[in-house]
Amino acid sequence: MEVTTKYITIKNHIDGTPQESDFHVKTAVLSLAVEPGSNNVIVKVLYLSVDPYQINRMKRHSSTQRAVDFAVGITPGEEDLVAGVVTWGEHSIIRGGNMLRKLDPMGFPLSYNLGVLGPSGLTAYCGFFQVCKPKKGEKVFVSAASGSVGYLVGQFAKLLGCYVVGSAGSNEKVELLKEKLGFDDAFNYKEETDLKSALKRYCPDGIDMYFDNVGAEMQEAAVANMNTFGRVAVCGVISEYTDSGRRAAPHMLDVVCKRITIQGFLTADYLNIYPEFISTMANYLHDGKIKVLEDISYGVENVPSAFIGLFRGYNIGKKIVEIADN
Amino acid sequence: MEVTTKYITIKNHIDGTPQESDFHVKTAVLSLAVEPGSNNVIVKVLYLSVDPYQINRMKRHSSTQRAVDFAVGITPGEEDLVAGVVTWGEHSIIRGGNMLRKLDPMGFPLSYNLGVLGPSGLTAYCGFFQVCKPKKGEKVFVSAASGSVGYLVGQFAKLLGCYVVGSAGSNEKVELLKEKLGFDDAFNYKEETDLKSALKRYCPDGIDMYFDNVGAEMQEAAVANMNTFGRVAVCGVISEYTDSGRRAAPHMLDVVCKRITIQGFLTADYLNIYPEFISTMANYLHDGKIKVLEDISYGVENVPSAFIGLFRGYNIGKKIVEIADN
Repeated sequence: MEVTTKYITIKNHIDGTPQESDFHVKTAVLSLAVEPGSNNVIVKVLYLSVDPYQINRMKRHSSTQRAVDFAVGITPGEEDLVAGVVTWGEHSIIRGGNMLRKLDPMGFPLSYNLGVLGPSGLTAYCGFFQVCKPKKGEKVFVSAASGSVGYLVGQFAKLLGCYVVGSAGSNEKVELLKEKLGFDDAFNYKEETDLKSALKRYCPDGIDMYFDNVGAEMQEAAVANMNTFGRVAVCGVISEYTDSGRRAAPHMLDVVCKRITIQGFLTADYLNIYPEFISTMANYLHDGKIKVLEDISYGVENVPSAFIGLFRGYNIGKKIVEIADN
Repeated sequence: MEVTTKYITIKNHIDGTPQESDFHVKTAVLSLAVEPGSNNVIVKVLYLSVDPYQINRMKRHSSTQRAVDFAVGITPGEEDLVAGVVTWGEHSIIRGGNMLRKLDPMGFPLSYNLGVLGPSGLTAYCGFFQVCKPKKGEKVFVSAASGSVGYLVGQFAKLLGCYVVGSAGSNEKVELLKEKLGFDDAFNYKEETDLKSALKRYCPDGIDMYFDNVGAEMQEAAVANMNTFGRVAVCGVISEYTDSGRRAAPHMLDVVCKRITIQGFLTADYLNIYPEFISTMANYLHDGKIKVLEDISYGVENVPSAFIGLFRGYNIGKKIVEIADN
């Protein structure tokens, strides 16, 4: 059986901020039967995640300029629900060696497996609990706090009994953090001329943990406001991805005198806690302790704009593209 | 009993590189008898340590602009050998609350208690073993490698079976590191135009641990050459102390993707391992496993020039001023 399928390619490498014109929507005819003897699996994509760090795969110096991301889909014929990394398209051929796992939606919406129960959730969970090593009562600051990871980190921190402040790029997001997600305080970084003094105002007792999603000046300001033995968990640095000249230059004398740790991490190193994460998170969701924010676009044609929107701060919560109706 | 005693003061705060003209040599008449009922102790200083980080106490924004440092001395009258932090002078009045400990020289030269058996040694020991958490065979890079801490870190790393590279500021120092201290390789950073490519050349298998004594561009270059799960132990940042505009801006995307940890530390947090350190180090010295480098000036008048010389790279190994003959 053959289908006509749409997919997205990159015209060339992308070194700056991505634009619509960087992407092609293409069409191909695909046989849904894999070659005999092959371990390949064809997946019909249902929901596709778009994530900022994927831009790093599209750069000139990346080994590949491919557009891929995490998705949930279904295997035509066998009708297994699966999750894994796929190309941006309506169908994806998963080569034998690649990871694909069968999915148990546990009664939750399928899209949750991209966000709160998927990579973003695991990132927030391992970054906060394993890297930051938080204690009740500590002061937590999260940047990009209404983003797919940040909004969960803030809620974890509140559940643990921390004081939590978030930064975001619009007043609407700031209201959401304070009113809906229970952050103790939040601010719009675009309205601040001096991030260091802004953080001093919003975190009057200093910062014990900074969950860094943005890098650059915000990291410098957070380090300047840190308490002794403060920890910076560097999850991502979206403000540096599209501008190779932007850097964080935290004051190293502060790092020494306040015994600060700045630690980068990748979620892939924490797959061992995946069962614990899923069980904890499913309980939280069941008990209504974690609120879910999803921001869903529709149709493979809109994957580029969904992705581009991440760099413009358009998304609130987890950005997902629904590719096909299940 | 009264003595005429010389001491050093700072004329004003010091924000840039220290100069001879920043210091006064003064003379006072001091009674060697403490007031009845006081816990004060008078110390006759024998050997005085001079350390770069003391510059941070002399800056405009420091709470005090005092010239103090670690020393070994003797208490007139009681003739106890003691060690502790004293003012830069021939005698020091140690106020009741301040730490002063009795010293057992264990048959080693008294000056060792400022360097290899003193704060510099403990700094190298805790920074390398506790912060870097080294494993045999790992690749270690040390900056300011012929300095009071660096030359010990390199030797610890060799004793553990690491590959060790050091940077220093003269060809004479580089030779010393390679020929006398057993470093696998070393380079003169002043002769390199691109530190990143220099480190790539000297550390062809990457860097697992960077013991950072200097900060700024060298830290950036080390992070760029780090292996996955690399650790930066930030001990000091001498290149930033006298130039508030100089900063390290390590590439945070590297920090994330390579899961690098950058950790500042203070030796004061590791006093619990002091007994272990002393016993280990005394054994090393006894067995000739650690070579000792001391760079000794004489007379309190020469304390400012000894201190200033630290920022000009004049010292080789631990810089000490012998204030009085025991």
